[in-house]
Amino acid sequence: MIDKFERMAMLFDFYGKLLTAKQQDMLTLYYEQDLSLGEIAEEYKISRQAVHDTLKRAEKTLENLEVKLGLVKKFNLEQEKLARVQRLLEELKGDPALKGKIREVIGEIVEIQHND
Amino acid sequence: MIDKFERMAMLFDFYGKLLTAKQQDMLTLYYEQDLSLGEIAEEYKISRQAVHDTLKRAEKTLENLEVKLGLVKKFNLEQEKLARVQRLLEELKGDPALKGKIREVIGEIVEIQHND
Repeated sequence: MIDKFERMAMLFDFYGKLLTAKQQDMLTLYYEQDLSLGEIAEEYKISRQAVHDTLKRAEKTLENLEVKLGLVKKFNLEQEKLARVQRLLEELKGDPALKGKIREVIGEIVEIQHND
Repeated sequence: MIDKFERMAMLFDFYGKLLTAKQQDMLTLYYEQDLSLGEIAEEYKISRQAVHDTLKRAEKTLENLEVKLGLVKKFNLEQEKLARVQRLLEELKGDPALKGKIREVIGEIVEIQHND
């Protein structure tokens, strides 16, 4: 079980570009640069409550997007299955160079979802 | 190169749930049930032009979503690489049962993106 912070960071990673610029900026400060609500409030010259409200609204949008598209769920399932393929491949005898090539392509697949 | 109709059907498949209910209904009639603009207009008791405008707006939304999230592009790239893994696996000597198992898991990965 991952905690709420990690989950939000992941949802932000997948759907962040669908948020407004302001929401994106604030979530970056909060989830990626680890600033506190108070620090963000100071940065924007707004109240701590206003920062809290903006983050809450953005988080709700992200959760709704996940309900509709399920990208995080699909991503986790896929990474799990790719890891399983890698493990099964280890057990397989055969040309090491060819196995290395397969591992390489699987590594590329793992990367596709991580890249923008 | 796929044609515009196929591309739209694919974008609709990936992002359709982010459209309004009305847009989703109309795009389903047009792209999945293959109705003409005239037939959809009759169904909704609106002008052919109004159907055209609704479809255009929805298509623009879908294209914007693809610019931001790139799911179709990632999907195509991934399917290509999974097919490559399958081909390399065919060349590999080794326990057929184990190879069959790997093929099965790869088949499951291919399916993840197709399922809702």
